[in-house]
Amino acid sequence: MQSFKQLLDIVETEIKNLNYEIEPTRLYEPIKYILSIGGKRVRPVFTLMACNLFSDQPEKALQAAIALETFHNFTLLHDDIMDNASIRRNQPTVHTKWNNNIAILSGDAMCIKAYEHLANIDAKHFKPVFEVFTKTALMVCEGQQLDMDFESRKDVTIEEYLRMIELKTSVLIAACFKTGAIIGDASEKDADLLYEFGKNIGLAFQLQDDLLDVYGDSHTFGKNIGGDIIGNKKTFLLISALNLAKGETLEKLHFFINAKHFNPAEKIKNITEIYNQLGIRKLSEKQMKNYFEQAFIFIGRLSVSLEKTKEIRQEIEKLKNRIS
Amino acid sequence: MQSFKQLLDIVETEIKNLNYEIEPTRLYEPIKYILSIGGKRVRPVFTLMACNLFSDQPEKALQAAIALETFHNFTLLHDDIMDNASIRRNQPTVHTKWNNNIAILSGDAMCIKAYEHLANIDAKHFKPVFEVFTKTALMVCEGQQLDMDFESRKDVTIEEYLRMIELKTSVLIAACFKTGAIIGDASEKDADLLYEFGKNIGLAFQLQDDLLDVYGDSHTFGKNIGGDIIGNKKTFLLISALNLAKGETLEKLHFFINAKHFNPAEKIKNITEIYNQLGIRKLSEKQMKNYFEQAFIFIGRLSVSLEKTKEIRQEIEKLKNRIS
Repeated sequence: MQSFKQLLDIVETEIKNLNYEIEPTRLYEPIKYILSIGGKRVRPVFTLMACNLFSDQPEKALQAAIALETFHNFTLLHDDIMDNASIRRNQPTVHTKWNNNIAILSGDAMCIKAYEHLANIDAKHFKPVFEVFTKTALMVCEGQQLDMDFESRKDVTIEEYLRMIELKTSVLIAACFKTGAIIGDASEKDADLLYEFGKNIGLAFQLQDDLLDVYGDSHTFGKNIGGDIIGNKKTFLLISALNLAKGETLEKLHFFINAKHFNPAEKIKNITEIYNQLGIRKLSEKQMKNYFEQAFIFIGRLSVSLEKTKEIRQEIEKLKNRIS
Repeated sequence: MQSFKQLLDIVETEIKNLNYEIEPTRLYEPIKYILSIGGKRVRPVFTLMACNLFSDQPEKALQAAIALETFHNFTLLHDDIMDNASIRRNQPTVHTKWNNNIAILSGDAMCIKAYEHLANIDAKHFKPVFEVFTKTALMVCEGQQLDMDFESRKDVTIEEYLRMIELKTSVLIAACFKTGAIIGDASEKDADLLYEFGKNIGLAFQLQDDLLDVYGDSHTFGKNIGGDIIGNKKTFLLISALNLAKGETLEKLHFFINAKHFNPAEKIKNITEIYNQLGIRKLSEKQMKNYFEQAFIFIGRLSVSLEKTKEIRQEIEKLKNRIS
């Protein structure tokens, strides 16, 4: 088994050497930009790690890994327009650095580029990988639509929220693990177990992300802190707070949610105080830990040895404690 | 050989019966809407016609035809946002009827849906068809980017314009013919000849579209007349006029191009008059006819009989004289 670091190097080298078209520069520069400013590359590395569980040649999954990372970055490009986000990975977002039209079109080209990479995998695995990819890609769009729908709704339940993040975030992580497994010639059962593993990991990551938006450090987080609070994002935290708050606390919560004009810092401070008062952080952490535990049950049921899955499990443990 | 009308019926029935997901409605409704408000469906029917040249079963190319039509409509969705167009096919555009975010995301889902349809063709032809599709899709994005780049440039040449419309419009028509040919098991030479045929047809269609924007009827055209003039679009007409105009005429042209505040009807009237004065309509029609002639040379070199290509040639003749 190669280490996360070794596989990350392979991914980074491949991304650095991507031989993208040069002209028109305003189409391809934003793609190079978003791919160059990093991110943790967990999706492509997970793809290679899953392949490596069943094959000595994780590189066989490299083009699929790049496809998945390219698709992920495409969704970020478009989501950032829709969410009006100006900062991503401590850098200006594409629509801020260029403009909305450029971000729309470069994103479109990235979605197609993702498929182009996918076509480079061996013929034997192309069809099943293509199917997982396309099905997942549609689910990600559905998740983003639900997320937007929730903005104008006040009655979003925890169940609806969890279904939304499953679609928007988790199924792509799940697809990475499954894709690597398919290319590594895993059994269907193992590929499906890894899908479930990835799905739970993805849910845990999103809850962690929600927590970091409130309790993280803006520099290491790479985004502005409190963005979810300012935008009244229906996160696990806010929905839980709305469910638990009573009397004055609930009134205060509604006051800040409904306020048309407010001091952003004051809104963040007050809502964070309500979260603290209601024990929302603990609650979210508990839910997050549940997902991690579920995930470990699935990976434990694989036909491969515990020794082989050690590298993946260790990496997840590290990410569990991440502060960015 | 089945007629254009017969094959159109097959396409329309298939589109009407597309079993798209229902939820989230705000993701899938816009897709159904754009696909339902029509268009001439020339791309999917050309795909079937090309297949029918070499095979008695044009339906073999149906899923690829739907993929190409879906992709085309996806680009319209996003182009209309970028071009700020409010009317398409006499109906409000998606971003006008819903909003920009909905149009971005539904478009994304359509691009993925296009690939999903593509995956339904038989395994034997999937890889080559996939490659033509993906290469073409990227070129279409490049063409749209060039089109946007030209907006802020004053020195666009006729050659640059023709290259832009080749990418933005023609290669997709070319890909339709080539895809049908591949699925019909045509020889590589025939498939390539049909690609060149389609490319020239596409160039001719775009020049016709530029002409209709000035000389067409808004109702049958399905868009507002003079949109290109108001937006200073660097069309074949405007570039030719800028090349040919002298003295007072050139001054007047520049005056209207540079005017920040103007009466739209007055601008359209004046620029149309300049076009008339300079014989721009004739010039464009001549260029358009050249492309049609080129196209007919390519189709004439196919290994199939002239009798077999008659249906395609007749349909092109009809479209040549279209006023919408």
